[in-house]
Amino acid sequence: MYRAAVWGASGMAGGEVLRILAAHPSIEALCAVSRSREGQPVWHAHPHLRASFPDLTFCAPDEALKQEVDIVFLALPHGTSAPLIKEYLSRGSKVADLSGDVRLKSPSDYEKWYGAAPAHPELLEQAVYGLPELHREALKETSLASGVGCNASCSILGLYPLAGAELLKDVRIEVRVGSSEAGATPTIGSHHPYRSRTLRLYEPFRHRHLAEILQELRLSEECVTLSMTAVEMIRGVQMIAHISLARPVKEAEIWKLYRAAYSDEPFVSFCPARPSHLRLPDPKLLTGSNRALTGFVLHEDGTRLIVVSALDNLMKGAAGSAVQSANLMLGLPESEGLGMIPVYPA
Amino acid sequence: MYRAAVWGASGMAGGEVLRILAAHPSIEALCAVSRSREGQPVWHAHPHLRASFPDLTFCAPDEALKQEVDIVFLALPHGTSAPLIKEYLSRGSKVADLSGDVRLKSPSDYEKWYGAAPAHPELLEQAVYGLPELHREALKETSLASGVGCNASCSILGLYPLAGAELLKDVRIEVRVGSSEAGATPTIGSHHPYRSRTLRLYEPFRHRHLAEILQELRLSEECVTLSMTAVEMIRGVQMIAHISLARPVKEAEIWKLYRAAYSDEPFVSFCPARPSHLRLPDPKLLTGSNRALTGFVLHEDGTRLIVVSALDNLMKGAAGSAVQSANLMLGLPESEGLGMIPVYPA
Amino acid sequence: MYRAAVWGASGMAGGEVLRILAAHPSIEALCAVSRSREGQPVWHAHPHLRASFPDLTFCAPDEALKQEVDIVFLALPHGTSAPLIKEYLSRGSKVADLSGDVRLKSPSDYEKWYGAAPAHPELLEQAVYGLPELHREALKETSLASGVGCNASCSILGLYPLAGAELLKDVRIEVRVGSSEAGATPTIGSHHPYRSRTLRLYEPFRHRHLAEILQELRLSEECVTLSMTAVEMIRGVQMIAHISLARPVKEAEIWKLYRAAYSDEPFVSFCPARPSHLRLPDPKLLTGSNRALTGFVLHEDGTRLIVVSALDNLMKGAAGSAVQSANLMLGLPESEGLGMIPVYPA
Amino acid sequence: MYRAAVWGASGMAGGEVLRILAAHPSIEALCAVSRSREGQPVWHAHPHLRASFPDLTFCAPDEALKQEVDIVFLALPHGTSAPLIKEYLSRGSKVADLSGDVRLKSPSDYEKWYGAAPAHPELLEQAVYGLPELHREALKETSLASGVGCNASCSILGLYPLAGAELLKDVRIEVRVGSSEAGATPTIGSHHPYRSRTLRLYEPFRHRHLAEILQELRLSEECVTLSMTAVEMIRGVQMIAHISLARPVKEAEIWKLYRAAYSDEPFVSFCPARPSHLRLPDPKLLTGSNRALTGFVLHEDGTRLIVVSALDNLMKGAAGSAVQSANLMLGLPESEGLGMIPVYPA
Repeated sequence: MYRAAVWGASGMAGGEVLRILAAHPSIEALCAVSRSREGQPVWHAHPHLRASFPDLTFCAPDEALKQEVDIVFLALPHGTSAPLIKEYLSRGSKVADLSGDVRLKSPSDYEKWYGAAPAHPELLEQAVYGLPELHREALKETSLASGVGCNASCSILGLYPLAGAELLKDVRIEVRVGSSEAGATPTIGSHHPYRSRTLRLYEPFRHRHLAEILQELRLSEECVTLSMTAVEMIRGVQMIAHISLARPVKEAEIWKLYRAAYSDEPFVSFCPARPSHLRLPDPKLLTGSNRALTGFVLHEDGTRLIVVSALDNLMKGAAGSAVQSANLMLGLPESEGLGMIPVYPA
Repeated sequence: MYRAAVWGASGMAGGEVLRILAAHPSIEALCAVSRSREGQPVWHAHPHLRASFPDLTFCAPDEALKQEVDIVFLALPHGTSAPLIKEYLSRGSKVADLSGDVRLKSPSDYEKWYGAAPAHPELLEQAVYGLPELHREALKETSLASGVGCNASCSILGLYPLAGAELLKDVRIEVRVGSSEAGATPTIGSHHPYRSRTLRLYEPFRHRHLAEILQELRLSEECVTLSMTAVEMIRGVQMIAHISLARPVKEAEIWKLYRAAYSDEPFVSFCPARPSHLRLPDPKLLTGSNRALTGFVLHEDGTRLIVVSALDNLMKGAAGSAVQSANLMLGLPESEGLGMIPVYPA
Repeated sequence: MYRAAVWGASGMAGGEVLRILAAHPSIEALCAVSRSREGQPVWHAHPHLRASFPDLTFCAPDEALKQEVDIVFLALPHGTSAPLIKEYLSRGSKVADLSGDVRLKSPSDYEKWYGAAPAHPELLEQAVYGLPELHREALKETSLASGVGCNASCSILGLYPLAGAELLKDVRIEVRVGSSEAGATPTIGSHHPYRSRTLRLYEPFRHRHLAEILQELRLSEECVTLSMTAVEMIRGVQMIAHISLARPVKEAEIWKLYRAAYSDEPFVSFCPARPSHLRLPDPKLLTGSNRALTGFVLHEDGTRLIVVSALDNLMKGAAGSAVQSANLMLGLPESEGLGMIPVYPA
Repeated sequence: MYRAAVWGASGMAGGEVLRILAAHPSIEALCAVSRSREGQPVWHAHPHLRASFPDLTFCAPDEALKQEVDIVFLALPHGTSAPLIKEYLSRGSKVADLSGDVRLKSPSDYEKWYGAAPAHPELLEQAVYGLPELHREALKETSLASGVGCNASCSILGLYPLAGAELLKDVRIEVRVGSSEAGATPTIGSHHPYRSRTLRLYEPFRHRHLAEILQELRLSEECVTLSMTAVEMIRGVQMIAHISLARPVKEAEIWKLYRAAYSDEPFVSFCPARPSHLRLPDPKLLTGSNRALTGFVLHEDGTRLIVVSALDNLMKGAAGSAVQSANLMLGLPESEGLGMIPVYPA
C-alpha cells in the first residue's frame, strides 16, 4: 500500500482526490492537509466522505511534512506548489501537482500567462504534463507529473488526433464549465442567485488554459481562439471547436484518426455516428467518472468541422488524471481505483 | 409625482423596489442609497435596470439625507433602520421599513427573537405591519409601515382566514425558499456548487419569522412549528402547513372562509378545486409579480388539513408589499405600479 | 381598442402573446384559439394568466373564424399558417405569423429548409420579416409580418451592424437555448431527467434558422456556420459568434457601427466596455422583457472578434417582436404594451 | 458468478440495476429485457453505460425466458410483475421485484391502494419487504424480495427507530422527490419548462407509498399524514417528519434509539449534532450511492420532533436496496457491489 499526502485537501480538487483514494486498492490517504481546517474531521469539509473517512482529520502543513509518503497530491493555488515539489522530490516522493505551477514547459510562457517568473524554472523541464493519453511512457519514468487544466485537458483530448495530422488551420474553441471549476471559495460570481442559470462569458481570448492547449497540441496562438462560458452545471466541461481544416477531407479520414488515437485508451472514447443524438458528447453522461468523450460532425464541404469533447472537470479534468498519472509513476496499473461508472441521470 | 429614497438600494430587496418604482406612475426613485457603491451607476448592481435607470447613480447616506422626499424605503439589515425611521418621520416623510426593526409590536418579543432590545421601542407601537390584507385601514392612516418577512407573509396569507375562525389546533409549517431570500452577499451557504439543488433545512423551530406569524395570527408558540428548507430556486416562497383542526369541518366551511377573506383582494387568490394539479399553488406561477396564491386539501376525516401558499419573496414577500403599503400611506390607489403579470414558465 | 385573435393560444408562444395583450392598452385578446383545449379556461393552460383572463376560454377554429378581428397572431406549426394568412388578409385583417411559413423570401429557399414547396408562394413576397430593427418602415406599410426564429433574431441583431459594413469573412455561430424554445409538447428530449443540466448539441450546420440569418444579413452559406446547444435554462437565447474579419479593424470602428445601428432603438442595447463582466450579455438579464443586448470583444490582432447577443426567446425572439410588428402595422406606438422590465435575478 | 436477468431494463430503475451489476463482483447481467427496444444496444437507452456494456443488447421477453438465471430483477410497472414472479420462482430463481406488486402483505390493502385485487395473492404472503435494515434474516431465507417505494423506504428508515419505541403520536410527513422518480417516460408533468424549479404538491394524503410506511412501521392511518412535493432535482428523496411525541423525551433517549438501530448498518447513518448545518441530511450528499442518512432536532418542549432522512431514490430507494436484498438471498456479502461513494458536489 502506497502512502499519500493530499495538500489543499479541503478544496474541491483535493476532496475529489480523497474520494478516489478512499476506494483505491493500492494508495492510501495518510494525511489530508489544510491550514484553515486543521484538526477538523475531513468530513466537515466533504460531508459525502463521512463513511469513507470517519476518523481522518485535516492536518497542518508542518505535521504533514513530518510524514513519510510515497506520493503527494498538491491541490493548491498556482505559485504555492513549487517549493513543496522541491521538498518532496528531494525526499524521493513522487509528486502529482494539480496546480498550474509546472504545466508549461517554457519559463517565458509561464511568465506570460501567470504574470510572474516561475519560482523554480528547473521544475518546468522536469515535469511531465499529466495527461497519460499524450505522455504515458514519460509518466512511467518521471517523479513529477503536472496536473491538467480542466478546460485544457478537455480541449486537448478533443483535438489531439487532428493536431498530429496537421489538419487544423483555424480553431475557435468554446468551452462551457460548471461552477465547481472555480473551487470552494464563495465569490460574487459564485453567488447562487447570480450564478444559477447564467451564461456568463469570461476571459475571451486570454484564459490561461489556452497556453496548455497550444503547448500540447503544438499550435500557434494565431490559429486558436478560446472563450469560456460559465453555465448552469456543477460538474462538467464541454468543448465545442469550430474548425477550418487545412484541406478538404472525407469523414473516413477523421474517423481513422480518432480510432488510431483512442481505440485502446481506457478512459477516452469517441462517439459513433449513430444514434445521432449521442454523436456530440454531453458531460452529463460522465458525472463522477474518469472518462472523456469526443465526437465530431463534418460539413458537407469537407473543410468545416465541429469537434465536441466532454469530461467531469473534477475527475478526468483534475483529480482523476492526477491519480492516473500517479498510478503510472508508481508502477501501478494505470486504471486502478478509477473505474467509477458515471451517475446518470443526475 | 411623489419622490422616494431607497436605502439599501444595492441589495436584492432594494433593487426590487427600484424595479417597481421604475414603472410606477406616481412615485419616482429620487435617490438610491448605497454606502459601498456610492457613485456607481445603479445598473452596475442591477444590470437588468440599465434601460430603466440609465443615469441614476448610488448616492451616499449623507447625500441622501439632504434630499427632501415624500416616502422612503429602508431595505436595510435589522438594527440599522430604526434611527433612520426616526429621522424621516421627524421630517414628515412616510416610511416603509423593509427591515425587521418594527415588525413586532412587543419590545420583549423583539428582544427574544432579535437578541437585543429595540433601539426605539416607541416605533414598535407606532408601526403598522405592512400587509394590507390584514391592516389596510391602519396603513391608510399611518406614516410608518413595517416590512414583512417573506416566509411570514406567505404563511400569514395562507393561514389568516383559518386563524380568525379559531380552527387551528396544531400547525406544522414547512417553508421552502429560493436563494434570493438570503440577499446579495456571497456566503459558503450561497456558493453555487453547494447551494444548487440542495435541500437544506435550517433554523428548525426558531426562525425569526415565526414571531411575525404568531403575532399576526394571534396564535401561541405551543401550537405552531416552523421549519425552513432552502431549495433550488432563486425567487419564491412556498408554505405547506399540516394542520390539525380544532374540530371536524366540511370542505364548504373552509371555502367560505377563504372566499370571505380574499374574494376582493387585488393580489391574493385562492385556488379552485379544479383542475386538481393547480389546487395547491406553486411559486413558479408567480415569478416577478406581486401576487400570492393559497390552496388547501382537507382529509376525509375532516380534521386534517393541508394548506399551501406561495408568493415571490422579493415582490409580495418584500418590495411589492412595501410599495403596496406605500401606496396606501400616500393615498394612492393600492395596486398602482404593481400590475406585473407573472413570467411563466421561467 | 383593436381586437385580436390568437391562434395556437395554448402553446408557449401563443401564451406569451396573451400575456402581452393582457396589459396592452390598445389591443385586446378577443379570442384564444385551441383545437385541443376548446372550451377550457385559458388559465388551465397558462395558470399564470388566471388573474388576467379569469373568464376567457379557448375557442375552436370555426368559432374563431366567425369573429371579426383587426389583427391575428398565428402561433402555429409551420405549414399550417399559410391558409389562415390568406383567409385573414382577404378579410382585411392584419396578420402577424409566428410560424416559419413566410419568413423566407425565396420559394426555393423555403423548399430547401422546410422540405416542401410553400403552399402559397405569393405570401413570401408579400410578407415583411418581423424584425422592426431591420424593416420598420416596411412593417408600417404591410398587412403581413412574419415571425422571427428566436435563434435567428438573436443572431441577426448581434451581427447586423457588422454585416452592413462588409466586415464578416467567416462567422462561426454557437447558439444556446432554453427549453421553452421547443414548445409545450413533452418529448423524450424535454423529459426533465434528461433535459436538465444537459449540454446537448443538435442540428449542427443545418438548423432552419440559419436560412433566416443568411437572408437578413445577406451572407452566403459558405461563410456562416451555425450550431445549437440546449442548455439548462427555460427562457433565453444567447449567441456567440466567433468572427474572422475581412480586414483588421480598431475597436472604435466596431463601437461606431453598433452605436449607429442601435442608439435609437427602443429594445436593443449594446453593452459598454465597462464593467467588463457585463460586456458580453447574458440572457438571464432579460427574462420576461422584450429587450435584446449585444456586446463584443476584439482580439488584439484586430481580425478576430467575438460577438455575443442575448434575448428572451418567448419575448423579443417570438411574441414580443410579433406584438412590436403588430403595433407598427396598426399604426400604434411601436413600444406600446412592451415595457416589461426584466425580472432579475430569477 | 451468478447470472441475472433484468426486466424493464430500459427504464430508470432497470438502468440503475445494470449500473450496479456492471461492477458487481458476483452477479452478472446476462440479459436486459425491453420489449420496446429489443435488439438495440443497451447503451442507446443508458449512454453512461457504453463503456460498461459495449456489446449487450436488449432482448425480448420471449428470449429472456429461454435463459436460465439465478436471480431476476423486475423493474416493471405494478400489475405486470406478478406472473413473472410465479414463473421465475417455479424455475428456482431468486426474484427481486422492484414493482409494487408484492410490497403489501394484505390483499385488501393491495386492493385499496392499487385499485385492483392482486393477481396472485399468495405471493404477498411469501414476499419479504426488501429493506434489509428491517428484514435482514428473512431476506436470507426467502426467494422473493419485494422492492421498496423510494418515498416509503426513505420515510421508514427515518422513523423506524422511533416507531419501535411507541413514541409516535402524530406524524406529518413531507417528502420531496426528484424527477427521476417518475421514470423514463415523458409526460406533461415532466416537461422541462414546467418541471424545472417547480414545487408541485401531488397526491396529498393518498400516495401509495403511505401503505408501505404504515405496514412497516405498524402505524395506523389516523396518525400518519403524507404529502409529496416534486422539487428541482433529478435524483434524491428527502423526508421531513413533523412529529408529536406520545410523551416528552430527552434528546439522549432519541440518540439512543438511533444508535441502537443504525450503528452497525452498512448503509444507514445518523447525523451527529455537530456541525449543526449537517445535522438534518440533504440527499445531495448521497448522489449515486446506496447510503441513507437520518437526523433529528427535538424542540425544547420535549414533545415536538423533526426527523429528516435522505437517500438516492434510484439507489437505496430502488435498485440499491434490490441488489442488497439479492445479495442476501444469494448468500453473498450484503454490501457487495454497493460501495459507490457519493458524487459531491454534483
